[in-house]
Amino acid sequence: MITSHTNPLLKDIRRLQTRRERGRFVAEGEDLLAAAQQAGWQPVHLLRSGVDVSEEALAKVSSLGSGTRALGVFEERWAQPAGPLCVALWGVKDPGNVGTVLRAALAFGAGSVVLGPGTADPYGPKAVRASMGAIFEVPVARVAAIDELPGVRVALDARRGDVLRGDAWDRTGDLTLVIGAERAGLPPEVLAACDRAAHIPIANESLNAAMAATLAVYELTRVPEA
Amino acid sequence: MITSHTNPLLKDIRRLQTRRERGRFVAEGEDLLAAAQQAGWQPVHLLRSGVDVSEEALAKVSSLGSGTRALGVFEERWAQPAGPLCVALWGVKDPGNVGTVLRAALAFGAGSVVLGPGTADPYGPKAVRASMGAIFEVPVARVAAIDELPGVRVALDARRGDVLRGDAWDRTGDLTLVIGAERAGLPPEVLAACDRAAHIPIANESLNAAMAATLAVYELTRVPEA
Repeated sequence: MITSHTNPLLKDIRRLQTRRERGRFVAEGEDLLAAAQQAGWQPVHLLRSGVDVSEEALAKVSSLGSGTRALGVFEERWAQPAGPLCVALWGVKDPGNVGTVLRAALAFGAGSVVLGPGTADPYGPKAVRASMGAIFEVPVARVAAIDELPGVRVALDARRGDVLRGDAWDRTGDLTLVIGAERAGLPPEVLAACDRAAHIPIANESLNAAMAATLAVYELTRVPEA
Repeated sequence: MITSHTNPLLKDIRRLQTRRERGRFVAEGEDLLAAAQQAGWQPVHLLRSGVDVSEEALAKVSSLGSGTRALGVFEERWAQPAGPLCVALWGVKDPGNVGTVLRAALAFGAGSVVLGPGTADPYGPKAVRASMGAIFEVPVARVAAIDELPGVRVALDARRGDVLRGDAWDRTGDLTLVIGAERAGLPPEVLAACDRAAHIPIANESLNAAMAATLAVYELTRVPEA
């Protein structure tokens, strides 16, 4: 059992929590580790409090204020962008929002979540936690440009374009929803590179990126009434 | 200009940030204060950095890690539960979720947000911040029991009842959506006190209370295609 704070593995984990490298990431807590296991992910390292590591030493590498009972180190997995419904985030800096989008993508069966430039790392501790385990289920991909995204690219905008309607659109091919940052939205060159724009009609102000993405994925997977 | 940390007003504000009393609350930051002004709320106290108070003294009472440029103290306003669409939160402990629900209520024009037992304070600093100013726009009310809620009471559940459909339901009268805590959901006695149950069909796992509320309010205010 590891008890020393200077143990090399604990030092590695501490580094992974802040400045990740070598394609590995940390998931903390029994719920997240259960989600990983259920999805068939084997941890590279598994540290259980009082079993593999002392409670005190584990608390020192935890990113949770309250400490944790178990922590796993996993290898990142990167997929290719895929439909039929793909959700692409462009400049979404908040890792909590990225995690929430992963959760919505899982809830409504999106094929992949794609991270464009300036978007928070989906394998960072906050995004992993906010995903509530969806990071282990939803394929994630990285791209540099809009033309790497599958199918018809729809820019989700606060005001522009058509009303987003799952039941009014041809959904025979792939479709990628492109979602920008909360305040700035999508830059003009990204809007121009998309095939069309759409918005969610709202009475007031803007929704945040996670809410907009959740609603859009819901709308596009919504089964019309028979 | 206030410069002393022992100034009585600053001491009051520090207390309001943690354990609120006397029906007052704090809103920090120029965006929130602009939202308050636009909605016609006059602060009881307004503290602008370098004008009414020194930057250093203001930073000491700020709940933001980075400090703030302006802070206002306001009187709480409590309304009666009101439709046509009312959103009732029951045991939603996370103040960030309460703020997000306020935001969704504003975006889609809900008549009020009602806080049931065990629900986070909508005027706490985290809820106010997460509301992005919606706290100044959406009437908030408190109730102790389901029978204080207007119209048909629909319990939003993970699995029970009908699929939630804005276009298939009679919406001539008031309707209250009752939303429970993320994991526990609604307790049996609350479910029993509601008139019906409904769910949002999802492929996997649960949505959090804020996402579920956002989707439900969207669905119920969604204008059917002409």
